[in-house]
Amino acid sequence: MAETKSQNIHFHGANVTRDEREAILGQRGCVVWLTGFSASGKSTIARRVEQLLLEQDVYTYVLDGDNLRFKLNKDLGFSATDRAENIRRVGCVAELFADSGAIVLTAFISPYRADRDAARALLPAGRFIEAFVATSLEACEARDPKGLYKKARAGEIKEFTGISDPYEAPEAAELIVNTEGKTVDESAEQVLAHLRAHGFIK
Amino acid sequence: MAETKSQNIHFHGANVTRDEREAILGQRGCVVWLTGFSASGKSTIARRVEQLLLEQDVYTYVLDGDNLRFKLNKDLGFSATDRAENIRRVGCVAELFADSGAIVLTAFISPYRADRDAARALLPAGRFIEAFVATSLEACEARDPKGLYKKARAGEIKEFTGISDPYEAPEAAELIVNTEGKTVDESAEQVLAHLRAHGFIK
Repeated sequence: MAETKSQNIHFHGANVTRDEREAILGQRGCVVWLTGFSASGKSTIARRVEQLLLEQDVYTYVLDGDNLRFKLNKDLGFSATDRAENIRRVGCVAELFADSGAIVLTAFISPYRADRDAARALLPAGRFIEAFVATSLEACEARDPKGLYKKARAGEIKEFTGISDPYEAPEAAELIVNTEGKTVDESAEQVLAHLRAHGFIK
Repeated sequence: MAETKSQNIHFHGANVTRDEREAILGQRGCVVWLTGFSASGKSTIARRVEQLLLEQDVYTYVLDGDNLRFKLNKDLGFSATDRAENIRRVGCVAELFADSGAIVLTAFISPYRADRDAARALLPAGRFIEAFVATSLEACEARDPKGLYKKARAGEIKEFTGISDPYEAPEAAELIVNTEGKTVDESAEQVLAHLRAHGFIK
């Protein structure tokens, strides 16, 4: 595959074009923007999709709090301004990965429509896949793996999405991922099916 | 290659480890941090290395002013503080790409040792390759492709590295790239040879 993928590519300029890069990589870069309540399953789905894509030799990466909060965004707190800047930077980094040809998955609550739309606007048309992880608030609160909902209900955490802060659900998401009554693999397969159907992967 | 690369990989945890990812991709992620005067050849070399790596099916990406300044770093100006923040964010994004398994090349003057060392500190040991593009100031000024040195000499541009602002040359760069009397391909080959010799690519 190493030989055949690139044999017909000839670079015509100093800069590699997106088409040239994608022809070589055999995939099309895009952002899968997972949004939903805390404990809805965003990161779990993203990490499983990552594994399944890598098994198919698809270049992919996950952006989430684990790799963003403590480095690039370490100067940001949880004020409204800082939350918006957090999501803005995530969108910019995601755009770079998509431009590099990667299937990049982002896993952030990203409760505000305006912030998600700003991230969408950074990408070429069709390259931003808003994936609403539509687990109900009730189901998320019943899961509560980190005890955060309990603390939010007790008032120990202020400004908690779904409890004391709003969540603006997507109105026209490209993909609605269901998790209730489904396995992680079933949810992940929904994402993969969308990527195949839209020609991002084979 | 698609079949053989991944056939022995089995994921043991929810998160893909760096070793698992690199075994699948058949390359090791790293940052090639090109530093040097304006017009020294940083971007030209980076873009040529990018082409040569892609021709070998190596996943790679270039970070430079073209793709950073107008999106992620659009809120930053040219004050000392903003320049440092600019380089800090470049380092953080480069670290993410390297973590994803990419050979990422950065092309910024990055005149201050402290800023470059801070970028180095974000990476695991051995994954940061400081590449000093050692074109002399005289040669850069003679090239002056955008007329910037002329404007700096005329005082029309303030705080111009090498003219009115210092450039702190690397003292222990992993790689010193010579461009004077060399073709772009010869300079690019120096970078590739280093990547091969240190096992980042085959």
